[in-house]
Amino acid sequence: MNCIDLIRKKRDAYKLSKEEIRYLISEYSKGNIPDYQFSAFLMAVYFQGMDFQETTNLMQAMMDSGKSLDLSNIKKPKIDKHSTGGVGDKVSLILAPLMASCGICVPMISGRGLGHTGGTLDKLESIPGFKTNLSIKQFKCQLKKIGVAMIGQTIEIAPADKKMYALRDVTATVDSIPLISASIMSKKLAEDLDGLVLDIKLGNGAFIKDYKKAKELAQTMIQISKRSSVKVITILTDMNNPLGNYTGNSLEIIETIEALKGRGPEDLMEITFALAKAMLKLAKIKGGKKLLEKKIASGGALNKFKEIIHYQGGDVRVIEDYSRLPVARNRIKVKAQKTGYINHINTFDIGMLLVQLGGGRFKKEEKIDPSCGFRIYKKIGDYVKKGECLVKIFCDNRSKTRSVVKQMHDVFTIKTKFCRRKTLIREILH
Amino acid sequence: MNCIDLIRKKRDAYKLSKEEIRYLISEYSKGNIPDYQFSAFLMAVYFQGMDFQETTNLMQAMMDSGKSLDLSNIKKPKIDKHSTGGVGDKVSLILAPLMASCGICVPMISGRGLGHTGGTLDKLESIPGFKTNLSIKQFKCQLKKIGVAMIGQTIEIAPADKKMYALRDVTATVDSIPLISASIMSKKLAEDLDGLVLDIKLGNGAFIKDYKKAKELAQTMIQISKRSSVKVITILTDMNNPLGNYTGNSLEIIETIEALKGRGPEDLMEITFALAKAMLKLAKIKGGKKLLEKKIASGGALNKFKEIIHYQGGDVRVIEDYSRLPVARNRIKVKAQKTGYINHINTFDIGMLLVQLGGGRFKKEEKIDPSCGFRIYKKIGDYVKKGECLVKIFCDNRSKTRSVVKQMHDVFTIKTKFCRRKTLIREILH
Repeated sequence: MNCIDLIRKKRDAYKLSKEEIRYLISEYSKGNIPDYQFSAFLMAVYFQGMDFQETTNLMQAMMDSGKSLDLSNIKKPKIDKHSTGGVGDKVSLILAPLMASCGICVPMISGRGLGHTGGTLDKLESIPGFKTNLSIKQFKCQLKKIGVAMIGQTIEIAPADKKMYALRDVTATVDSIPLISASIMSKKLAEDLDGLVLDIKLGNGAFIKDYKKAKELAQTMIQISKRSSVKVITILTDMNNPLGNYTGNSLEIIETIEALKGRGPEDLMEITFALAKAMLKLAKIKGGKKLLEKKIASGGALNKFKEIIHYQGGDVRVIEDYSRLPVARNRIKVKAQKTGYINHINTFDIGMLLVQLGGGRFKKEEKIDPSCGFRIYKKIGDYVKKGECLVKIFCDNRSKTRSVVKQMHDVFTIKTKFCRRKTLIREILH
Repeated sequence: MNCIDLIRKKRDAYKLSKEEIRYLISEYSKGNIPDYQFSAFLMAVYFQGMDFQETTNLMQAMMDSGKSLDLSNIKKPKIDKHSTGGVGDKVSLILAPLMASCGICVPMISGRGLGHTGGTLDKLESIPGFKTNLSIKQFKCQLKKIGVAMIGQTIEIAPADKKMYALRDVTATVDSIPLISASIMSKKLAEDLDGLVLDIKLGNGAFIKDYKKAKELAQTMIQISKRSSVKVITILTDMNNPLGNYTGNSLEIIETIEALKGRGPEDLMEITFALAKAMLKLAKIKGGKKLLEKKIASGGALNKFKEIIHYQGGDVRVIEDYSRLPVARNRIKVKAQKTGYINHINTFDIGMLLVQLGGGRFKKEEKIDPSCGFRIYKKIGDYVKKGECLVKIFCDNRSKTRSVVKQMHDVFTIKTKFCRRKTLIREILH
């Protein structure tokens, strides 16, 4: 087998066999296929696509590039959740302890924020002392003891994905349904899961802007899950507003704790419960929304979050004392310049403005400042009076704050005509 | 400007501006854009193409990556010829001295054989002592003195093309009309030419198999020439038979000298004269075919070839004494296994069988054996009796010869039904 022939084959729209895909991934992982050939291959895949069987074989080959977890000593159903990324999306932080409190094992491997989207790991690390770089041994041990652990991608799991993603990122080949699907599933398969709930964000704050593409990703995920041992439910959710009332790392931890105390904002809880119900379904646990509400009302879910913080070296006192979290002291209000209804929010820009404040990153290597962020007061469909507060900016760097205030006005489109907010849960596929 | 954005732009079918193309080529040449990004860009171009203006800008940027010749002290019209490559194609060797004998300056920069196609430089180097690596100074000096010189691509001229071609070769992105056109023209522009005749080979022994693609290349070349100072005539010629009666380096030199002595085979002379007439037209020299025949009959063209050999350090005695050329002594006949008409010749395979003998190369670094080759006795439409000779193999390596004999039978398809040969000159565009 020869890499050039395989690039040409995909370029000319032929299907690649299992052996051919395995050859490409394995040789690329080992460094025997150079980046410049692999990026040409990725671009050919971008244009010609892959069918479900090829995508399944790709996912399998990527998984086999590394080690798999063996969680067979855990008898509970093992279910994880993944989101394609949005603004203000702290659902994983609420969901992981909530589901664990329902008896599901949640081996959650998350990512960091990049561009306009935040990352679960960055948010967790705003809790003083919290460690996300557990060894596989520690991860398994914690899962056995408390049923949930939240870590970052390790080099052991699907290293081909890590290498491929880095290359896709710099060659404009990220945006390909088969590559996205195989990337997500290769890691999830290696986690030895029984099921996965996938939150596909859709709208101007999401990577995927249009419905057709979101649906295509959902269907691909379902089809490749049918060819593997991980059952998948995908939920298409609206990302034309920031989710919840806060964005920014420490602020989102506070909102998470509030949600676990039963005081979560409506939109955040609607999506959290929809995903939670799907996870219960995959785990074959009965009880539905009532069970979830009970676990929050009883403090069971909050207590599980406390256990996570404790086991991962964080300061559990943050649960009761938010002042232990790094939150910027300087706060500036952005006020509406006219009266009317919010017709549009440029959610992507809110994410990018957070990066400008220092609360996110453009490049993987950059450090972030967990103390800054936004409190969002108004969403699409809300009525606002001139001079009323739209957003409160939290940031101790005053020059950055000034620059962001100016740009924040352009994020909101206020018109006299009312505009209805889109349904949050757009579609559930399984 | 940013490489990723430009890859994405081309990927999404937008046109690139002159400045954007210039940025890509200049930064890639300097090593500031890595191969893995550039190969993704090339694959995006493969799929989305480039319009005539983009292709012109690409050609210009590639030319500007290096130095240009300044031939302004030569007052004769400066015309070159380029072929997309075929089997048995020694036309350049006849054409260069013939045109110089007509008063045209021919600054010919040629390539080496690769894969199934032979290369002018390799053929010339089978003449003992012949040097093709002249310095630019020597090249210009020779052009001034005898009006013709034949050298290889130097690193000074269009280095971006050299770097890009090496990358295209290993990433399945060779086969793109705008990339092919810009590659050819960037080098020809740098030669300070007035005109170029392009022989686009078409058929099973050519890189381009189908008429539509050949026509597209011809039209692109014409269009970009109209946006530059080099006037182009393109001729589409048939490559479903080897051209002339010989393939192999020394053997083709002998056939060249025979042609210059007035004993060239019909098909070879038909194409040579068609290209020569186009060159006369570009040079605005009258006389047409009669002038060409006169230059051959008078020995003027042969004498010019002798001058080339002399100026480039070769042994001029080969003109009269072919035994001074390295020709294999071991010769094996391949005989027809049945009686009938030749209906098809796999010309590509003849080229590849020559590589097997050692007379061509798979990879650029490989050395070749100039002594081996084939004498082809039959072409499409010819009648052949069982036992009659189809091909004579020249090769001193007996095991290679044995292996090639077997495969040579499959090259010819003999049927009882007559099959007409295709017209050699398919179309002339300017």
